[in-house]
Amino acid sequence: MPCQSSNELKILVNEARNCAKEGKVADYIPELGKANSSDLSIAIYYPDGKCISAGDINKKFTLQSISKVISLALVLKDRGFPYVFKRVGMEPTGDPFNSIAKLETMTPAKPLNPMINAGALVVTHMIAGNSVEERFNRLLGFIRELTGNTHTGYNEKVASSEFETADLNRALCYFLKQHKTINEDVESLLDLYTKQCAVEMNCLDLARIGMIFAMDGIDPVNGKQIMPEKIARICKTFMVTCGMYNASGEFAIKIGIPAKSGVSGGIMGAVPGKFGIGIFGPALDDKGNSIAGIRLLELLSRNYDLSMF
Amino acid sequence: MPCQSSNELKILVNEARNCAKEGKVADYIPELGKANSSDLSIAIYYPDGKCISAGDINKKFTLQSISKVISLALVLKDRGFPYVFKRVGMEPTGDPFNSIAKLETMTPAKPLNPMINAGALVVTHMIAGNSVEERFNRLLGFIRELTGNTHTGYNEKVASSEFETADLNRALCYFLKQHKTINEDVESLLDLYTKQCAVEMNCLDLARIGMIFAMDGIDPVNGKQIMPEKIARICKTFMVTCGMYNASGEFAIKIGIPAKSGVSGGIMGAVPGKFGIGIFGPALDDKGNSIAGIRLLELLSRNYDLSMF
Amino acid sequence: MPCQSSNELKILVNEARNCAKEGKVADYIPELGKANSSDLSIAIYYPDGKCISAGDINKKFTLQSISKVISLALVLKDRGFPYVFKRVGMEPTGDPFNSIAKLETMTPAKPLNPMINAGALVVTHMIAGNSVEERFNRLLGFIRELTGNTHTGYNEKVASSEFETADLNRALCYFLKQHKTINEDVESLLDLYTKQCAVEMNCLDLARIGMIFAMDGIDPVNGKQIMPEKIARICKTFMVTCGMYNASGEFAIKIGIPAKSGVSGGIMGAVPGKFGIGIFGPALDDKGNSIAGIRLLELLSRNYDLSMF
Amino acid sequence: MPCQSSNELKILVNEARNCAKEGKVADYIPELGKANSSDLSIAIYYPDGKCISAGDINKKFTLQSISKVISLALVLKDRGFPYVFKRVGMEPTGDPFNSIAKLETMTPAKPLNPMINAGALVVTHMIAGNSVEERFNRLLGFIRELTGNTHTGYNEKVASSEFETADLNRALCYFLKQHKTINEDVESLLDLYTKQCAVEMNCLDLARIGMIFAMDGIDPVNGKQIMPEKIARICKTFMVTCGMYNASGEFAIKIGIPAKSGVSGGIMGAVPGKFGIGIFGPALDDKGNSIAGIRLLELLSRNYDLSMF
Repeated sequence: MPCQSSNELKILVNEARNCAKEGKVADYIPELGKANSSDLSIAIYYPDGKCISAGDINKKFTLQSISKVISLALVLKDRGFPYVFKRVGMEPTGDPFNSIAKLETMTPAKPLNPMINAGALVVTHMIAGNSVEERFNRLLGFIRELTGNTHTGYNEKVASSEFETADLNRALCYFLKQHKTINEDVESLLDLYTKQCAVEMNCLDLARIGMIFAMDGIDPVNGKQIMPEKIARICKTFMVTCGMYNASGEFAIKIGIPAKSGVSGGIMGAVPGKFGIGIFGPALDDKGNSIAGIRLLELLSRNYDLSMF
Repeated sequence: MPCQSSNELKILVNEARNCAKEGKVADYIPELGKANSSDLSIAIYYPDGKCISAGDINKKFTLQSISKVISLALVLKDRGFPYVFKRVGMEPTGDPFNSIAKLETMTPAKPLNPMINAGALVVTHMIAGNSVEERFNRLLGFIRELTGNTHTGYNEKVASSEFETADLNRALCYFLKQHKTINEDVESLLDLYTKQCAVEMNCLDLARIGMIFAMDGIDPVNGKQIMPEKIARICKTFMVTCGMYNASGEFAIKIGIPAKSGVSGGIMGAVPGKFGIGIFGPALDDKGNSIAGIRLLELLSRNYDLSMF
Repeated sequence: MPCQSSNELKILVNEARNCAKEGKVADYIPELGKANSSDLSIAIYYPDGKCISAGDINKKFTLQSISKVISLALVLKDRGFPYVFKRVGMEPTGDPFNSIAKLETMTPAKPLNPMINAGALVVTHMIAGNSVEERFNRLLGFIRELTGNTHTGYNEKVASSEFETADLNRALCYFLKQHKTINEDVESLLDLYTKQCAVEMNCLDLARIGMIFAMDGIDPVNGKQIMPEKIARICKTFMVTCGMYNASGEFAIKIGIPAKSGVSGGIMGAVPGKFGIGIFGPALDDKGNSIAGIRLLELLSRNYDLSMF
Repeated sequence: MPCQSSNELKILVNEARNCAKEGKVADYIPELGKANSSDLSIAIYYPDGKCISAGDINKKFTLQSISKVISLALVLKDRGFPYVFKRVGMEPTGDPFNSIAKLETMTPAKPLNPMINAGALVVTHMIAGNSVEERFNRLLGFIRELTGNTHTGYNEKVASSEFETADLNRALCYFLKQHKTINEDVESLLDLYTKQCAVEMNCLDLARIGMIFAMDGIDPVNGKQIMPEKIARICKTFMVTCGMYNASGEFAIKIGIPAKSGVSGGIMGAVPGKFGIGIFGPALDDKGNSIAGIRLLELLSRNYDLSMF
């Protein structure tokens, strides 16, 4: 088992933190712009409940795109595979995560995968329930099962900041609505989506979610199968092929751990059969991934031989 | 002077009407789908006030994309050339009129020309006034000056039908808003835009507008310069290079008359220095132009040698 | 009749030459890079044989893209309209003249118009004859008819310089060959095409060609119809909608004269029914048009009211 | 260890063969069109030298795109990572394997990954040597080390059939040459590339290559490290993210085995740390992958739990 002590982690964090200064905190969502660009924290969560960490692990951050994996898992549970994959594809793309152009050239207008914004919006659209509130509570309940933390909630300021500036996502939604890929009120969908993105936790909670994915959906504490094995595996596959925006290919080659990042600077990792990783480092590289977080995962992967490949 | 009698026109209309059956009435805006696909009417308006016509010239139709030329003229008057052309380009495009992909590849997100939807939305956005009502009245006043008909109004049913189904235009607007090309409330802009598209008249009125453009902006009845010569000329140029959707090049070659069509089946023509043409034929070809209307213009151009080239 | 004296022209040339320093001589074809960037000359050719000029009118230059209009006229004569327009379209495009991307998204791979490189290569491919030599002589014979100058030839150095560096055109040709839009040996076609581009003359000769197009194909000296009226008109239409690369729309609005430019810095103008213009000014703007040449045409159009619109 | 007997394999082959009739043999390379669409054979090669198989395993087929993984491994050995990845990217793409459009929109014109044709051509361009013959022999020597079969050669008929019809690859090469991504004679490069694609073997040989990749580059028979571990891992990563054309994402989800297919109907699989797979089934699905081969891998993965995820 790799990296048994928090002290080892601290050394790696200190080395990785050096490159934070080459990154930049996301500012297109005003609330995110307030983060401290030199922050870097990590937690590793083992199936036996053991947890090691380094950095200020009490810092909370919002999930942003990391939530795309979780909503996908929920929707696959609720709707089944044929229903979901009729509406969103399985293929990686070389285009940026927020691109609209490919939707226009494809018939029908089916997003290439659930990790780009267009696809994630279609996934969130499929969360069952009679109202935004009911659907969001459903998602939050699922996330709390994953974190094992009944206090997991969302950051209202970030949600409303994002809602107000989500014009590109509005464009994607209306385009998808025009092509009947979605059929609900766009403002409701964006309300739900921005709340989903604003779900907040620290890296301990995030590492626990990663651990559940790593353990094929089983919560080892109580033996409960939170999601079917097949869904956990599909989610890890998407994390490998499209989890790190359009740097996923390079990440798979250099690091080889299923992972999903968000523009808040969070990264969730799931080392299959072994453990989960939660990282928070808000300084981003030009692809939108935590620059120090990626460096830290590279050090971990190399030192403890964690690549799947 | 060409075609002096309505009888001559009738013969051409009868010939052209034959191809209406190969076209199809637009149905993506539900209200438009109610048109009679075999309708075909034409009016020619001369500067001396003489007017000849054929077909049922009392039938009214909405301007749809034809309105793009008129709002452009108004905005050029109000805002001046540098202001307008900083926000919308002058170049034709080989893409469909409702395409969004090119906006993504261009920096900044400046629509290629005012005749595609993205560009027309930017133009309507520039109509001056403190409210949708004030801005629409401003536009309507200008249109009434052009038709010389104080009863020119708009079709509320078509406007609201179009407003409700305008999700592709919503996508364009939010994309443009994200890139700060427009900065007003999108629903307000669409309210104004769909009213503009729903301005209603018969082909006599439309022919009179074409005549004003043909006469470089002067109303020959009262000698008033409704718009500066330079603006009338620019509008005619856009009609040649991008007036007939992405069949504009073929239209220029085969017919050679500055013209603008709409999905209602209307076409406005402006034969420079000579006369204006108004046509209504709701059966459309696959590019969105009135199929019998184009045929009729082809017969006119050939019989009376009307091509500019 | 406008601008009757060479002295008037000289004043305009001197004013227009000022902006040459903001342009740049094309250097992607090494031989073209040797031109003097401050050169600017113009000739205007009237149907009665009168000719006025300014600048060093003995300077020769190669036609480059200007030749695309002439080969189109020849091919339309030889093959007829349906044959030609089955293989190349009539629509302007917002893409750069050397773009390949649109060919991939269209089915079949039919270039949008004959003024972009892909379309011009298809046109040259259609020049009749049993060998490159025979086909080039056929084209040269036609050009000599137009210039009335039996000495019109081509610049071998430019042709071979261009042939050697024509890899982008090779890519276009092989793409078109793969899709069976052309079916001859690519190196032969490029040999013919680069010779066509390298046909050389001064601005007097070029103005005479423009005059023939302006006079609908008739050589007024001998009354001979060098090409049918309809072909001359189609060529002028293409010059308006796509003659000045992807600045054609702006050129139509600001200047309104059918014109075709080349990266050598030549521009041929054809003022319908009036006269032809030949310009040489090798400093180019960022779209590939002669920067001082465009300025000069703008001064001419404004001073003598030459816009068609 | 999975699937120990050839009898088990036979049952799976018989089931998978049923779907061959829904596929179609590739015919764009005339020689490939001669294959028998109902063929299906498989070999599994274990590190201890044990080999099980089913179907007519004496049938030979050409590697086609499977060769892209092998040339990549060779070039990474010869040139090192920075040199190679400066010229070709690491990211999957949603575009077809032979697309040229993305090259135009990227600056510089760097192919997204080595598994699409543009990228594979750049890789083959980097094979060291002073002539096509020397470079091909270098590649063939490497392949013989992998197969352990000194008779591995290439099919001259297929190579020349492919060379003659390779106009799309010629277009890609000239485009890359224009942008200086490659700088050799295009016909030489295509000569080398089509020979590489025409390297021929049966599924036993192919399974042995897959086994070497599975064992991180070590030939377990003699303990020799044929390629560094890091290169073998990178190759497997590309097989996961882009090995199955633009069905790679779906393949990763449903099957989860690093694999590379070719239009000949071959598929090479490498189950990390376990064994190699060679499959031949020439009937292809609409993405260009062996339809029965994919079905067979799905049965194997499900029955023996082979997914990495």
